[in-house]
Amino acid sequence: MRTRVTDMFGIELPIFAFSHCRDVVAAVSRAGGMGVLGALAYTPEELEVELAWIDEHVGGRPYGVDVVMPASYAGSDLGLDSPADLVARLQGMITPEHRAFVEDLLAKHNVPTLTGSDPGKVLLGWTDATARPQVEVALKHPIALLANALGPPPADVVELAHSKGVKVAALASTPRHAIKQVEVGVDVIVAQGTEAGGHTGEISTMVLIPQVVDAVDVPVLAAGGIGGGRQMAAGMALGADGVWTGSIWLTVEEADTPEMAKKRILEATSRDTVRSRSWTGKPARLLKNEWTDAWESADSPGTLPMPLQYMLVSPALRRIGNSDAAELATFPAGQIIGAMNQVKTARQVVFEMVEEYIEAMERLDRITAD
Amino acid sequence: MRTRVTDMFGIELPIFAFSHCRDVVAAVSRAGGMGVLGALAYTPEELEVELAWIDEHVGGRPYGVDVVMPASYAGSDLGLDSPADLVARLQGMITPEHRAFVEDLLAKHNVPTLTGSDPGKVLLGWTDATARPQVEVALKHPIALLANALGPPPADVVELAHSKGVKVAALASTPRHAIKQVEVGVDVIVAQGTEAGGHTGEISTMVLIPQVVDAVDVPVLAAGGIGGGRQMAAGMALGADGVWTGSIWLTVEEADTPEMAKKRILEATSRDTVRSRSWTGKPARLLKNEWTDAWESADSPGTLPMPLQYMLVSPALRRIGNSDAAELATFPAGQIIGAMNQVKTARQVVFEMVEEYIEAMERLDRITAD
Repeated sequence: MRTRVTDMFGIELPIFAFSHCRDVVAAVSRAGGMGVLGALAYTPEELEVELAWIDEHVGGRPYGVDVVMPASYAGSDLGLDSPADLVARLQGMITPEHRAFVEDLLAKHNVPTLTGSDPGKVLLGWTDATARPQVEVALKHPIALLANALGPPPADVVELAHSKGVKVAALASTPRHAIKQVEVGVDVIVAQGTEAGGHTGEISTMVLIPQVVDAVDVPVLAAGGIGGGRQMAAGMALGADGVWTGSIWLTVEEADTPEMAKKRILEATSRDTVRSRSWTGKPARLLKNEWTDAWESADSPGTLPMPLQYMLVSPALRRIGNSDAAELATFPAGQIIGAMNQVKTARQVVFEMVEEYIEAMERLDRITAD
Repeated sequence: MRTRVTDMFGIELPIFAFSHCRDVVAAVSRAGGMGVLGALAYTPEELEVELAWIDEHVGGRPYGVDVVMPASYAGSDLGLDSPADLVARLQGMITPEHRAFVEDLLAKHNVPTLTGSDPGKVLLGWTDATARPQVEVALKHPIALLANALGPPPADVVELAHSKGVKVAALASTPRHAIKQVEVGVDVIVAQGTEAGGHTGEISTMVLIPQVVDAVDVPVLAAGGIGGGRQMAAGMALGADGVWTGSIWLTVEEADTPEMAKKRILEATSRDTVRSRSWTGKPARLLKNEWTDAWESADSPGTLPMPLQYMLVSPALRRIGNSDAAELATFPAGQIIGAMNQVKTARQVVFEMVEEYIEAMERLDRITAD
């Protein structure tokens, strides 16, 4: 297969795989696609370890790193460059009412407190100040792509990446976003429909992709609802140069997704997700359960703006993850989880996607042959 | 082009066009697709007139009729076969609080009362009892397709249609719906994604279509977000045998859409719709405006179940339509309205869709040629 992105990155397949797991990233790149590591949860030191591992295991194939530098967030106007100072100030902005709501919810579900948790990690990667050290670490490695979620990356970060020969991608959920991102120098637009897991807009992939393709001259990757070869073919038919996938890697053999979460995803239907602000303060598609329901209920205090909501709930979600309260364990997941019913290797997922893509193309050719 | 639905109906193009306007229905059928008239708003006598007109103007090409026989609605257990009795009983189930909320909202926006309105029309086509006379009228005409929204049609209606050689289609927003519909004898499934206008589920077209295609053996039409040839190609790539379109016909030259509504659609972006119960009591995608916002606001009494909500709001929406309160004028509209920016003839829309489809196919062929 040959598109502008296979040429740009020297890859065989225009399949991009977002994952927080280094094993998945390396496996997809080795299979001919491009793995992209989500750096969000890693300290700079941890990220260094992950990327060094990928360098050793990716067999010289290109891979990418994804950071979150939101264009807007609470505290962005405080002018505090030190992450520690920023965290302290932001902690003070979380209301006692919100803290009580979370504690009550956990108490109702008998979630025990956790010893040895690391409060310093609650803000990693959600602000410009805390994401920059991640970018610096990433650019010391032979990465091919730096991707940014949540708005256009800062112009100096784009320049820095370009100066090292690294291409920059950004996620867009409207054509207007995409135009702004290209204006700051972004090389590849990931146009992401509302059905996607994690932070996502309102417009569906089917409607969004042609609008973004028509709005910008750079290559576009179709994201949101892409799990198999028919969806890949659909994304390409809509005008994309490749596909960006996320949720489907949560259940592969290589993924270090908690067993409880893997089980929930394998059993879920496509109606078991919801777009909710209860994780980070910005709308993100999550597994729908008693956690997301609670934040919509009559006694919910409402969610806080980014990054306060994540600072508030991230210790709670860690406690839930270590408890038996599976009914509260939510995480980013796209509607495609309804189609994920068995564990496969990452390599198998890539090959089956290509096989189904070819079958879809053959069927399309037959339709117009007559 | 040749698929199972072009064979089934003897049409050249697997493009189905839902419209309340007879001119659009006839024009699309004459252009090689299949027009389907939405019967909802017509009395049996009016429907007779519309269908007689189509018979004269469709040039012998096949066309269809779409009715709404919801699988469940308030009052369905009352056992009242007379539409007049049913309407009287249902009117009594609308609370004074709800009536006051609507009156207040209209007063706030200076919407005048309307003389000469017809209260008997408020329930047309929203119940089994009131839709049956429409079916009887439709089956006296040489229709090729009877489509039902909102759940599986009654088994005897399917049988009646089949006995006259008429195929039956039904809309499904989950694979489970589709399986149930095939079990009662439905011949064609319209798998409709959440981005569609009107009553619609939660799952996006991209995610839904392959699941429905894998769940049933009958042909599937892809619906939701289909406005151009790239989207048509995407729908077919996902496994559909054709596409079902709706919103794109609202702004064609032939459509009798009110001028104010046409203007709003041509200006709208794909973010200007919302899935709301404020029209019929079941979730339907509508143009987002002060009407839909009001029903989500803190002083909203909440919506009533089908068909009570429509009985409550339909006279109000008629008053709004006759007033200057454009900010309250809502109507069913899919996310594709963001891509509709100029008035064209129905024939032009069909031909441009086919042209873009062919271009999309050529591009796909180049991608795998290397």
